[in-house]
Amino acid sequence: MTTSQFDLSTLAGLAATLPGVDQTARSAATDRQNQLTKPPGALGRLEDLAIFMAGWQGTEKPVINTAQALVFAGNHGVCAQGVNPFPQEVTAQMVANFEHGGAAINQLCRAAGADLSVIALELDRPTGDITQGPAMGAEDAQAALDAGAAAVNPSADIVLLGEMGIGNSTIAAALANAAFGGAAADWVGPGTGSDAAGVSRKVAVVETAVARHAGLSGAGTLAALGGREQAAICGAILAARAQGIPVLLDGYICTAAAAPLHMADPALLDHCLVAHQSAEPGHAMLLKAMGKTPILQFDMRLGEGSGAALALSVLRAALECHNGMATFAEAGVAGG
Amino acid sequence: MTTSQFDLSTLAGLAATLPGVDQTARSAATDRQNQLTKPPGALGRLEDLAIFMAGWQGTEKPVINTAQALVFAGNHGVCAQGVNPFPQEVTAQMVANFEHGGAAINQLCRAAGADLSVIALELDRPTGDITQGPAMGAEDAQAALDAGAAAVNPSADIVLLGEMGIGNSTIAAALANAAFGGAAADWVGPGTGSDAAGVSRKVAVVETAVARHAGLSGAGTLAALGGREQAAICGAILAARAQGIPVLLDGYICTAAAAPLHMADPALLDHCLVAHQSAEPGHAMLLKAMGKTPILQFDMRLGEGSGAALALSVLRAALECHNGMATFAEAGVAGG
Repeated sequence: MTTSQFDLSTLAGLAATLPGVDQTARSAATDRQNQLTKPPGALGRLEDLAIFMAGWQGTEKPVINTAQALVFAGNHGVCAQGVNPFPQEVTAQMVANFEHGGAAINQLCRAAGADLSVIALELDRPTGDITQGPAMGAEDAQAALDAGAAAVNPSADIVLLGEMGIGNSTIAAALANAAFGGAAADWVGPGTGSDAAGVSRKVAVVETAVARHAGLSGAGTLAALGGREQAAICGAILAARAQGIPVLLDGYICTAAAAPLHMADPALLDHCLVAHQSAEPGHAMLLKAMGKTPILQFDMRLGEGSGAALALSVLRAALECHNGMATFAEAGVAGG
Repeated sequence: MTTSQFDLSTLAGLAATLPGVDQTARSAATDRQNQLTKPPGALGRLEDLAIFMAGWQGTEKPVINTAQALVFAGNHGVCAQGVNPFPQEVTAQMVANFEHGGAAINQLCRAAGADLSVIALELDRPTGDITQGPAMGAEDAQAALDAGAAAVNPSADIVLLGEMGIGNSTIAAALANAAFGGAAADWVGPGTGSDAAGVSRKVAVVETAVARHAGLSGAGTLAALGGREQAAICGAILAARAQGIPVLLDGYICTAAAAPLHMADPALLDHCLVAHQSAEPGHAMLLKAMGKTPILQFDMRLGEGSGAALALSVLRAALECHNGMATFAEAGVAGG
């Protein structure tokens, strides 16, 4: 048995042992933004993004030379409840499509300059049906978390996280509901294309599952309601934090995958940006609950890391401006 | 005297003589989107953008090999009314900054792969003060329109339009108000950084100018209230349309520059996307009035074509997905 870098049973105290934001670098980057040849604040959120990256990379002039995109795939026992219009085999078929370069995420990673790795997690061994029992035992959850942590390239300047897994919009709704309460219906949407009857079925499934696994810790919730790709996303978030690498979370399912970390300690997600507010209705509520402002809102509802890859171009643009623009003094422009 | 490609006096009948959208290409692109390996509609606005580009490039698989960014600069007599916190010399200083590569637009064009040209339009001869008389006579307006039309590269696959001109957020508010009515205060905002007193001054200036030049045609309004960079933007929009090239308009000032064309005939802007909804409060109203949905909303208020360059990466991503993704049949994925 290998030693885990992050022990699921000790999540709550973990943030204090991991690197925090570098306030000196943040301040230096903020000062720099105010000297660039533009009215103060005129680059809007591009300025915020550059300053965020400076704080988490720990340097006044953050860079993105290596952008790593990780897409984790898993299968879910809850599909037995008929929560998804696509057959479960599509998870493996889409993984093959990723590997052959035919999916949206392949094109989006190429366009944005990200190195894509797809990690299929025991697709032939779906997790347990969350309406009947826990999705995973502690060992399975830890193994998936470890797989996610191990996938992070320590040389990356940013890590993009995405997922693929037929049925996992139901898993996302369950995790969000367990973490933040409210009614199951608030967190359930059509996912990849459920009709009204399908959505009702998903609501009932989420209600049953969340009631069955109530009152658990963040780690316990992840094992009971999550899937392997969700645990792997948590592991990658923690490994990136340990290496001082900022993270771009994709959309609803990816944000919900991180909700168990938020339950354990919201500070565990301080180095994470959310790339895209999904068309899935629960996402706006989830982002509010987690205190995250999405970079883009583009009515996408695909997953795969597609929103993260799209937002990467925006992040690159923010850094190009931050690092490449002249200051008022350098350019001899009045008004600085 | 050279012959003008587009005569300002005949704008109203022009659309019928220019190419329209290619409905066959649009339909083919729509069909293609529905066969790609994703749930139908799951790429949200990326799908709309690809289909828009197909319709205006007249091909099922639109491309962006050459993206041309044109930034027009002009000076405005209305600055005599104290509408801007920056001195008018900043226009020429920023043009020099563009030429030396130090401005935001230089970094954003490099990041997005756009060829930037900056066209300074008689900066030492500001237009007339619109509170006292017309900004331009018909000949000056036509010359600026011609300069804009001549700047368009006929080989471009998309044209990005931007502007620079101290005082031109006042010009934008006046054009928008003249085109769409309402109160001057609805269209005036802080621009590059006016305080409350500055905004009040701008409102009074816009009220006076719009009242003085009321009841004119689109072309008449452009000459009376616009500046040279606004007329050049109109010329570039028309030249792009004549060549079958879609256009990305930047933010508030650039959208307002196109308002006189909308007055003449809204169809003249059918090939134009709006890149970024400015933080300037009048922009949301202007977009609604013109029936345009912005690609991004990023709290920017810089101009220079910055929003257009940022949105170009999104447009490129849309086309990468559209052209590069496998169909369900090609990938052997169930559910197509």
